[in-house]
Amino acid sequence: MPNLHALAARSACGLIRHVAPGITPGSGPGHLGLFGYEPLHYQVGRGVLEALGIEFDLRPGDVAARGNFCTVDAQGLIVDRRAGRISSEAAIAVADRLKTIRLPGVETFVEPVKEHRFVLVLRGPGLSGKLSETDPQAVGTAPLPVLPQEPAAAATADLVNCFIAEARRLLHDATPANMIMLRGFDLLPDLPKFPRVYGLKAAAIAAYPMYRGLARLVGMEILKTGGTFAEEIATLQQHWESYDFFFVHYKDTDKAGEDGNFGAKVEALERFDAALPGVLDLAPDVTVVTGDHASPSILAGHGWQPVPVLIASRYCGADPVTQFTERACAGGTLGVMPSHTLMPLVLANALRLTKFGA
Amino acid sequence: MPNLHALAARSACGLIRHVAPGITPGSGPGHLGLFGYEPLHYQVGRGVLEALGIEFDLRPGDVAARGNFCTVDAQGLIVDRRAGRISSEAAIAVADRLKTIRLPGVETFVEPVKEHRFVLVLRGPGLSGKLSETDPQAVGTAPLPVLPQEPAAAATADLVNCFIAEARRLLHDATPANMIMLRGFDLLPDLPKFPRVYGLKAAAIAAYPMYRGLARLVGMEILKTGGTFAEEIATLQQHWESYDFFFVHYKDTDKAGEDGNFGAKVEALERFDAALPGVLDLAPDVTVVTGDHASPSILAGHGWQPVPVLIASRYCGADPVTQFTERACAGGTLGVMPSHTLMPLVLANALRLTKFGA
Repeated sequence: MPNLHALAARSACGLIRHVAPGITPGSGPGHLGLFGYEPLHYQVGRGVLEALGIEFDLRPGDVAARGNFCTVDAQGLIVDRRAGRISSEAAIAVADRLKTIRLPGVETFVEPVKEHRFVLVLRGPGLSGKLSETDPQAVGTAPLPVLPQEPAAAATADLVNCFIAEARRLLHDATPANMIMLRGFDLLPDLPKFPRVYGLKAAAIAAYPMYRGLARLVGMEILKTGGTFAEEIATLQQHWESYDFFFVHYKDTDKAGEDGNFGAKVEALERFDAALPGVLDLAPDVTVVTGDHASPSILAGHGWQPVPVLIASRYCGADPVTQFTERACAGGTLGVMPSHTLMPLVLANALRLTKFGA
Repeated sequence: MPNLHALAARSACGLIRHVAPGITPGSGPGHLGLFGYEPLHYQVGRGVLEALGIEFDLRPGDVAARGNFCTVDAQGLIVDRRAGRISSEAAIAVADRLKTIRLPGVETFVEPVKEHRFVLVLRGPGLSGKLSETDPQAVGTAPLPVLPQEPAAAATADLVNCFIAEARRLLHDATPANMIMLRGFDLLPDLPKFPRVYGLKAAAIAAYPMYRGLARLVGMEILKTGGTFAEEIATLQQHWESYDFFFVHYKDTDKAGEDGNFGAKVEALERFDAALPGVLDLAPDVTVVTGDHASPSILAGHGWQPVPVLIASRYCGADPVTQFTERACAGGTLGVMPSHTLMPLVLANALRLTKFGA
């Protein structure tokens, strides 16, 4: 990775820890931390993240839940928590049945995601996301009713329980997807907005919907882009003069790691490295390269390990690190830093912060 | 820097971060952190720091503000926020006019600092420092009135507004310094006292008044000393047997950095290095060398970057670091440590702490 190593050599380097030692972050808290939102403080429910991931137009006050189609027996006991991982096409058909459900005073949206997964959104006044989950996380038992976890959630719990009863009725002959389970209820959080907090006109360039959704959640503008990294960089070049800050997402390393494919990950890193000059030629005041979580091939999934970070600027105070690797960056002057402390450093390197105290 | 490097080789080394990642500390929070006072918790207003900086004898209950002489036009709108940076001599003359102001129930003190800067101190019962600033941070607009930021500050706000009205009257023909602006109001904070907290008889040796003021703020004794570092070290040697702890301040590195003069900074470090044996020959149980903030020449001012620290003692656990530089210390066993965690380490190395738990 000659370009990354050369960039590391003129950067301050370190490792980013996203949540806490030993805690593996999902992409939601992984990104929120990098954007400066302490991920334990700004928790976003699974339902909201799923809705963002399909770019559903969530609005303030909406309650979203992650849904699973499942299989129950004649007694209503769960036989398969994922309905045999039915195909996405089959899921669309059963989701269409659920779309006919009408609840008093609220709009409902049922959006298939992939295979047995879907998103349920309720839209209306006075909803609460403080609801218990219906997935008992076991077979041989019935899905649980939704319980309010705060007094103000009682009405929302009633609505969701009505929805579940209707779903049971509508799906009774749709085996294997003859029942649903819901979890991760949450209201769309009203986060402080990135452009306002930092005084930066900010744009996101990401080929995958989940990352566009996370960027929209913090108030970045979403730029239309193609599906390859080369197209993302072309988008960056095209809009370079119009924004102060760009979040550019590269997916391939994560995907290779999640596939447990070490060779593919090496190639993904090499492709990233080859594309890097297309960014550096724009001569940014501050360049940051890092990740929203580790994806070690040996885990074939996200990992808890801290990830390398570099900050390059005229004022960064380059350290002796000359390789952009976990091992080399461990000796950098940034140390092991919590993810939400990255943005203040970025702003400092852009000379956008004033002195604290006299 | 052969002496510093040799000392680093038998020390535990690391980097100190003073406030938070990316945050550039002023000398006030920079020093308070090193003395063990978490600088976000123990915030000291600009007015108090300015008063300490001229060694004004601030007392408990005093309210201090930083003042600027400024220029206003016939409509009272600000034309120059610094009155053309008038000379210190001219400022003394206009400050003398302000010294004639009498307010009911309180004493007032007006002390010129340098050029357009002065300190206003109110002394009397029941004062509050929770006051808004009068500097609108812009020209073409009038200075703002002082507003109380808590109910108990209403009377103090009235007094300050009276002072400002009188100042306007007394200065109306003193162009360019025909008006004042006030900011950074604060009460002298009642900090836990360093000697009591740590059980150390502590003395400060500093040629510059600001650092003596900060040391007095935390309850150190201030030793009379000459203006050069050689004289500071002579003072140290002279009082060696009389104290448990010495804070010795070296100014030249900071000054060269703030001047943006890299060559002068190198020389200042070399002079410090040459003077170091005068300290080490005293055979201190624990020696600490560090800074209250970075002053990178490229910034010609304070910086947010962590600064090197070394702790030498018989028990320090020397690490592989053999150079007292930012880059080398980044690999030391102390890691990147918050400034207020330094004093517990110093006490531990002096074997002054007991075991936690059985």
